Amino acid sequence: MLEEQLTVAHLSESELLARIFPRLDRTSAVLLGPGDDAALVAAPDGRTLISIDTQTQDQDFRLQWNNGYRTTGFDVGWKAAAQNLSDINAMGGRATSLVVSLTMPPATQVSWVEDFADGLTAAIRDLGAADCSVAGGDLGRGRELGVTVAVVGTLGGLPPVVRSGAEAGDVVAVAGTLGRAAAGLALLESSVAMASLTPEQKALVENQCRPIPPLAAGPLAANSGVKAMMDISDGLIRDAGRMAAASTVVLDFDPVALKAHAAPLEAAAGLLGIDPMAWVLGGGEDHGLLATFPAGIQLPAGFTAIGSVQAVDESPGGSVRIAGQPADTVGWDHFAD
Amino acid sequence: MLEEQLTVAHLSESELLARIFPRLDRTSAVLLGPGDDAALVAAPDGRTLISIDTQTQDQDFRLQWNNGYRTTGFDVGWKAAAQNLSDINAMGGRATSLVVSLTMPPATQVSWVEDFADGLTAAIRDLGAADCSVAGGDLGRGRELGVTVAVVGTLGGLPPVVRSGAEAGDVVAVAGTLGRAAAGLALLESSVAMASLTPEQKALVENQCRPIPPLAAGPLAANSGVKAMMDISDGLIRDAGRMAAASTVVLDFDPVALKAHAAPLEAAAGLLGIDPMAWVLGGGEDHGLLATFPAGIQLPAGFTAIGSVQAVDESPGGSVRIAGQPADTVGWDHFAD
Repeated sequence: MLEEQLTVAHLSESELLARIFPRLDRTSAVLLGPGDDAALVAAPDGRTLISIDTQTQDQDFRLQWNNGYRTTGFDVGWKAAAQNLSDINAMGGRATSLVVSLTMPPATQVSWVEDFADGLTAAIRDLGAADCSVAGGDLGRGRELGVTVAVVGTLGGLPPVVRSGAEAGDVVAVAGTLGRAAAGLALLESSVAMASLTPEQKALVENQCRPIPPLAAGPLAANSGVKAMMDISDGLIRDAGRMAAASTVVLDFDPVALKAHAAPLEAAAGLLGIDPMAWVLGGGEDHGLLATFPAGIQLPAGFTAIGSVQAVDESPGGSVRIAGQPADTVGWDHFAD
Repeated sequence: MLEEQLTVAHLSESELLARIFPRLDRTSAVLLGPGDDAALVAAPDGRTLISIDTQTQDQDFRLQWNNGYRTTGFDVGWKAAAQNLSDINAMGGRATSLVVSLTMPPATQVSWVEDFADGLTAAIRDLGAADCSVAGGDLGRGRELGVTVAVVGTLGGLPPVVRSGAEAGDVVAVAGTLGRAAAGLALLESSVAMASLTPEQKALVENQCRPIPPLAAGPLAANSGVKAMMDISDGLIRDAGRMAAASTVVLDFDPVALKAHAAPLEAAAGLLGIDPMAWVLGGGEDHGLLATFPAGIQLPAGFTAIGSVQAVDESPGGSVRIAGQPADTVGWDHFAD
């Protein structure tokens, strides 16, 4: 049988695992695993961060996009790792291991699964999660592809950075990019063929398929007096609304700073007839960080100021504004229309 | 709208979470969560066990079985928790928290999700995982129901109990039941209506839908000189083959001891015209423990001897026998036919 005809239905679970394991790195934080009923991972400060995220075919990614791009196993592996690494980053921590559950239709090519494993490994390496490796996993069948990753990580003795710590007077800052993944998604869903995109526009598509969370920034913020922090995964305005509600404050964004994030998106936005600010305000999946710092301190490397925190006034629960005006919630919600 | 007409498509993610959270317990091992990007869980001995398991609709359970039984959200929640708690038990550890990812079609009833949360909570409580609670999760859409749980746990300072520690001369023992979940599965797949089953036979169906891993037995074994241990999730013979291979030994089962496990299954087996030994040898999902102990020690409570470990002879890699004869591999494999 030709290698490209080989599907997961042709292999036993152990044969498939034997093709995956050599593609994974192993770091010293994994004390035992994979291969037993559970892995054992170092938790040097006596605590462990944990988070879980699922990507489901046709909900979180399409195997074939409208513009012709075909999502690779590498893309799905990269994105699954990046999303989870970002959750640890948002707490100010460093990831120590991932466990990965992959649900696949029987017709899934074995080469797709190998490519998926390569994507996990590449994301961990290239995003700089040097302490992290895959400690274990689970393989199963389903009608659609589904990838769930759980991540554990360490805070290195520091307190967790929560989203409820913002106070009036703080500076609001972001690390990483805003709106690039959303611009890439719009290009993927458009009828503009991949081949006709400029290198700059192709880079936006890459940011959607293989996001680049700023993993150095989270621990740096935790060591630099950050007051509140979270991952921007559902869009700046929506996620800022969550921070504002958790902290009972007003987050007020500076339109000039927001426009600086929109400028690099203007060519792609023009191509599709879209206002690039919609991507900056509503796009998640870049997995940047939203944080607040005490006024007057020098922001840690990677962060730029984007607004300020104010006390709540008439609205009881905290809110988001742009230059003092209420910002609409334009991000993504999984269920509501 | 009537409560039973309410589906997950009618609620935002935060509205759905607000219905789930009150149904979950909270224990002191969860230092932070849910609600931030990651939860923080105590890892008192500086290490954490971690494992992940997925259940997918029509692969791991049917919403409607051939015999008329309808799988409840409670069943799915219970089983997802039980499977994962069992993985920590098999290492000799105690679970400290679960993170839960639930993928659902939009038409899923909200009451099903609430029932699912109740099933998670009930399994944790009733199985005696007193240190454990749900620390976080993820909700998403898909064409089919899928539940992935990752579990973390602690070894309380002891070494992990691996499957590679068996040595010639050891006693082979099991804790928990064998074949009951497989018998229940056969009843669910049969045309014998639920209503016509005896209470004993209904209890077998319950063991399939809501398995009862012996969670006290794992840590007790770890404190009692256990040499090798694993969860029996894919069938005694198949899982014993994995332990034999990892330890490079022969596991030789005593047919008299095996028959003692088959006896309580005889009525159900007779009803379906099946040899109950097929369930004892091939059935997983009871999530009992397979372990080896040094000869001559008193087995810890919950374990009964079922065979002995012998040195490998002609076969190079380790094997499983019954009264010295090669045992066929009759368990479950997700991919191979």
